Amino acid sequence: MQTLTVSLADRSYPIHIGSGLLADAQSYAPFITGKTVAIVTNKTIAPLYLQQVKTTIAALGKTIVEIILPNGEEHKTAASLDAIYTAMLTAKCDRKTTIIALGGGVIGDVAGFAAATYQRGVPFIQVPTTLLSQVDSSVGGKTAINHALGKNMIGAFYQPLAVISDTETLKTLPPREYASGLAEVVKHALIFDADHFAELEANTDALNARDATVLTRVIAHSCKIKADVVKQDERETKDIRALLNLGHTFGHAIETELGYGAWFHGEAVAAGCVMAAQYSRGIGKKAHLDVLRIQSLFAKLNLPVAAPKVPAKNLLAHMQRDKKNEGGVVTLILLNRIGEAIVDKRVPESDLLAFLESQVADPT
Amino acid sequence: MQTLTVSLADRSYPIHIGSGLLADAQSYAPFITGKTVAIVTNKTIAPLYLQQVKTTIAALGKTIVEIILPNGEEHKTAASLDAIYTAMLTAKCDRKTTIIALGGGVIGDVAGFAAATYQRGVPFIQVPTTLLSQVDSSVGGKTAINHALGKNMIGAFYQPLAVISDTETLKTLPPREYASGLAEVVKHALIFDADHFAELEANTDALNARDATVLTRVIAHSCKIKADVVKQDERETKDIRALLNLGHTFGHAIETELGYGAWFHGEAVAAGCVMAAQYSRGIGKKAHLDVLRIQSLFAKLNLPVAAPKVPAKNLLAHMQRDKKNEGGVVTLILLNRIGEAIVDKRVPESDLLAFLESQVADPT
Repeated sequence: MQTLTVSLADRSYPIHIGSGLLADAQSYAPFITGKTVAIVTNKTIAPLYLQQVKTTIAALGKTIVEIILPNGEEHKTAASLDAIYTAMLTAKCDRKTTIIALGGGVIGDVAGFAAATYQRGVPFIQVPTTLLSQVDSSVGGKTAINHALGKNMIGAFYQPLAVISDTETLKTLPPREYASGLAEVVKHALIFDADHFAELEANTDALNARDATVLTRVIAHSCKIKADVVKQDERETKDIRALLNLGHTFGHAIETELGYGAWFHGEAVAAGCVMAAQYSRGIGKKAHLDVLRIQSLFAKLNLPVAAPKVPAKNLLAHMQRDKKNEGGVVTLILLNRIGEAIVDKRVPESDLLAFLESQVADPT
Repeated sequence: MQTLTVSLADRSYPIHIGSGLLADAQSYAPFITGKTVAIVTNKTIAPLYLQQVKTTIAALGKTIVEIILPNGEEHKTAASLDAIYTAMLTAKCDRKTTIIALGGGVIGDVAGFAAATYQRGVPFIQVPTTLLSQVDSSVGGKTAINHALGKNMIGAFYQPLAVISDTETLKTLPPREYASGLAEVVKHALIFDADHFAELEANTDALNARDATVLTRVIAHSCKIKADVVKQDERETKDIRALLNLGHTFGHAIETELGYGAWFHGEAVAAGCVMAAQYSRGIGKKAHLDVLRIQSLFAKLNLPVAAPKVPAKNLLAHMQRDKKNEGGVVTLILLNRIGEAIVDKRVPESDLLAFLESQVADPT
C-alpha cells in the first residue's frame, strides 16, 4: 500500500493506494465514529464490490444503510441527490453518520455533495473504483451535480476524511472507461510534468495491458501532481487549480452538446486537450508546440483526438456558461509546451468561434 | 448605525444595524467585486423594498438579476433553490456574482444555500427585513432548505460577507411576524443573559409599540449574544452553539406536525421554550425554575405559551429525526435557570412521550 497526504491544514487527509484495500477495515476505522455508515454506490458496482465493503464495515460493528443509484452521468442530478437524502432521513441517519462513496466519479461527486449538505455536513470517505476517479475526481474535494443548463454547476468544496483506492477494482473496468481514466493521467502530465509525459509515452503497451506495477506507479504519481495543486489552491481562487481544467472547457461543451453519457468524460477531455493544444499552437502562437505528439499518445491509449461534428456555435454557447469565465468572457487553459500550461482569461469570442468552426468542419 | 463583528478568522464579517441602510451603497460596495448581483427576494418584500435596493446597487454600476420567490416557509424547498440556480445560469452569472438575500429567514436560508452551492460558492450578503432574521437567522452562517421528511435537513455552513439590517423595514411587519422575531430575542436572553431577560420584561410596552430606540438596542444586544456563541462554535461541533436550539426541538416538531407555515417559526419556538422549561422543572428536577415568569413574558409579547393539541406520538416521531440527536436518542436543550441552559443528550423516550402527552392533553 502506498499512502500520500493531501495537506490542507485541519482538512488534511490520506490517500491509500493498493491491492485489496476494500477489505482492509483499518483503513476505514479511524473515520467512522458514529454508529451508522451510509454506502452510496450504483447498480454496476453494487454486484461487484458492495458485499465486500459491507462485510468490512460490519466487522467494525456499524449499522449499514445502502443506497444504490442508477448508473451513469445522466443520473448525476438533483433526483439522485434526493434519493440519498430520503434514504438517510428514512433510516434516521444522524450528523455522525459517515457516507462512503463506492464507485466512479459520478458516485463520488453526488455522494460527496450529499455529505457536504446532509444536515449541513457529515463525515465522508471516497472509495473510488475507476481509474478516472482514483487519479482525479476523488482528490481535491470538488463535489457537484449537473444542472439542465450546465455540467457541475451546483456543488461544494468538501474534503473527504480519506480516499481508499483498491487497484484490484480496475480489473473489471470496460475498455472505454479504463481509457477515459488514462486521459486524466495524460492531462496531469501535459500541465505539470514533461518527464511523466515521456514516461507515459514509453509505457503505452503496459498501460493498455493494465500492468499492475506500472499502474500503481502512475496512479500515485498522478495523485501527487493533483494533491500538490490542491494544497496550493484548495478553492480555485488562484489560477493554479484552474490549470487542471486543461481540455475541460472544450470537453464539457462536447459532453453537453452530445448529451451526458454519449462520450465518456475522459474521452471528451482527451479531445478537449488536443483542441486546447491546437488553439495554443494556432491562435495562441505557440508554434513549437508538438500537437502531433499529444495526439499520438492519446491515440495509442485508445482515446479520441478531435471534436465530434457538431455545430460550432452550440459548442461556443456551452463554453460561454463555463464556471471559470468572468464577466461573460471565456477563460481557456492553454499550453506553453508539454509540461507547462497557462490561464488565458480573455479569449475573444470571434477567435473562438472561428477556431471551433475549423475543428468541427469535415476535412476537405 | 451600529456595527458588530462576527469574529471567524478569515470568514469574519460585519453586521451593520441602522435606519436607512437599504439605500447606503457604501455598506454593500466592498462585497461586490464582480459585474453582476443577483437579488433574491419574495413576492411580499419585492413591492416594498426591491426597487430601493436595485437603485442602490445600480448606482455602483452593477448588472442586476432579480429573483422573486413565492412567499412562505412552505417554499423553503429544493424547487425554490432550483429557481435561483436556473435564473442565475440563464443570466450566465459567474463565480464572482454576489447574491443578496433581501427578506426574512426563509429568503436568507434559501439564498444562502444557493450562494454556498452555486458553482461551488459565490459571495453572499444578508439584508434581513424581519426582526427574526435580523436578530437570529442572518447571524452565524447556517443555510438550509426543508425536506419532506424534516425541517432544515439539507444545508451548509456558509458565512455571508456582510449583514445589513435596516430597522426601517420592521415598520411594515405584520403583528404575528413581528412577535415571532421577539421570541428569538427572549430565547437568547433565556439561554445566556438573565439581565437582558429582565430588561425585556421591563420594556414589553415599548417593544410592542416598536419603539425605535429600544428596538435598536435590543437587536444589537441579541446579535451580540449570538455572534459570541458562533465565534466559539462555528459548526456546532461543541455543545455551546447547540444551546441556541432551546425550544427548537419541540418547536420544529410543532411546525412539522402542523405543516410549515401554520404557525410562525417564532411562535413555535416560544411554545417550545415554555415546553423546555416545563420539562426542565418537572422531569429535569429544576424545581426553582420560574416557568410562569417565562410564560408571562411570551404572553405579553403576544406569543403562544403551550403546544397545540396534536397527537403526542407524532411530535415524538418528529423529535426523533432532529439533527442534534446521536444514535437515535433525543437531545434536548434544558434550562438550569433563566439565563443558563444546558444540553441533555440522553432524554429517555418514555419520559419524553409521557411529557408530550401531558402537554397536548386538554386541561380537565
